Amino acid sequence: MRYFLEIAYDGTRFHGWQVQPNALSVQEVLDDCLSKVLRESISTTGSGRTDTGVHASQQFVHFDASQQLDLQHVVYRLNRILPDDISAYRLCHVADEAHARYDAFSRTYHYHITFRKDPFKRYYAWYHSRPLDVEQMNQAAAILLKYEDFTTFSKVKGDTKHYRCTIYQAEWKQEGEGLAFTIRANRFLRGMVRLVVGTLVDVGRGKLSPAAFEELVAGQDRSKSSGAAPAEGLYLARVEYPEHLFNASP
Amino acid sequence: MRYFLEIAYDGTRFHGWQVQPNALSVQEVLDDCLSKVLRESISTTGSGRTDTGVHASQQFVHFDASQQLDLQHVVYRLNRILPDDISAYRLCHVADEAHARYDAFSRTYHYHITFRKDPFKRYYAWYHSRPLDVEQMNQAAAILLKYEDFTTFSKVKGDTKHYRCTIYQAEWKQEGEGLAFTIRANRFLRGMVRLVVGTLVDVGRGKLSPAAFEELVAGQDRSKSSGAAPAEGLYLARVEYPEHLFNASP
Repeated sequence: MRYFLEIAYDGTRFHGWQVQPNALSVQEVLDDCLSKVLRESISTTGSGRTDTGVHASQQFVHFDASQQLDLQHVVYRLNRILPDDISAYRLCHVADEAHARYDAFSRTYHYHITFRKDPFKRYYAWYHSRPLDVEQMNQAAAILLKYEDFTTFSKVKGDTKHYRCTIYQAEWKQEGEGLAFTIRANRFLRGMVRLVVGTLVDVGRGKLSPAAFEELVAGQDRSKSSGAAPAEGLYLARVEYPEHLFNASP
Repeated sequence: MRYFLEIAYDGTRFHGWQVQPNALSVQEVLDDCLSKVLRESISTTGSGRTDTGVHASQQFVHFDASQQLDLQHVVYRLNRILPDDISAYRLCHVADEAHARYDAFSRTYHYHITFRKDPFKRYYAWYHSRPLDVEQMNQAAAILLKYEDFTTFSKVKGDTKHYRCTIYQAEWKQEGEGLAFTIRANRFLRGMVRLVVGTLVDVGRGKLSPAAFEELVAGQDRSKSSGAAPAEGLYLARVEYPEHLFNASP
């Protein structure tokens, strides 16, 4: 039987979501804990990867179990053995063909910048001592919605077949003594959000005009984007699925 | 010449504010960094101590330096060598007799409780899986304003000569999926806020009525309070001084 699990994690001490040899990943810890609670070998599939140091305030995974699960009880027992930087929130039975990656129709990321050297945000925001021009950054961000190919913001030729994404929202807002960026799309390329943020911050610094930013996007040349923004400001914040997916009868 | 410095720190990895042998304190790190920046041996005096794991979103210290300081430049250089979990915000020249501890006329602490196992709050809030009756907790908290002797909430006979405090505010508020407590007083006894919070939480759990809470306060028996709430939810949030103190001419 297939299940969806909603989790959140602080990515600070993990080498990203994905299991890999010789480095601690969120997936490895989660699979271990799920396997202990369910007393069978569990292997989860996430809605997508997050890189080293990137957080998730919402992430979904699916996995198969041979048993019918007492949903609330499993969440309770799982939270008792998960480390404090991973939480399990919700477990649902889903149809056998439901898939955490393929069925997600949108992902939303948040990126936080702080203008104050705040000891409580050292792992949770990018610290800038100088102000940024938010208006220019938002002019440039709006340009993202006019394009479909984001080769400019892709890291390397990886496992992707194409560089097309549909961006639904890309917007900076004031947030306390800092800024918060929200970007929502049907899919993201590897490293894309941090490259977009790094380049938009160059717009905010006055190093790049919104028009020059548009040329970069249109140019589809990955050597032209700015450096990636640091991981600690980035959160996977929301993953959306068709409602009917969660309504499978047990 | 005497200076006041406003700082903030994440207390997670420190054994409290106060310098002590064989354990890392905020004061030790701050004194070291100030001494390096000013190239003379600096020894700070804080507005008060914080215990192991307790945070400060605002703390003031005073220190004496033999030089007249370029205030902004010192803050800038200090932040460059301070670790990420301590920040310097503001440096002021003050009168020679100004004192970070004796001149503070109020201290405000915040205490955060979360009802959600939130990976981002593991060092910043006390996690309760069960709901608490906030109305009862606020009825009990209001009782604190009627009393002056808080022996009940003092840890041990320590360096204090008396147990009298004037509490100006003691109030719980909803905050997202949790609660935030604000307590403001002219002074606090050692460990007092965590003992008050621990006992108020017992009221919220229904283990203690507001009337029984009042008996505890009136009884002045330190063996009767509940256990101390954990350190991670506690923040020194504000220290107030007479305005004129910051207006000394350089």
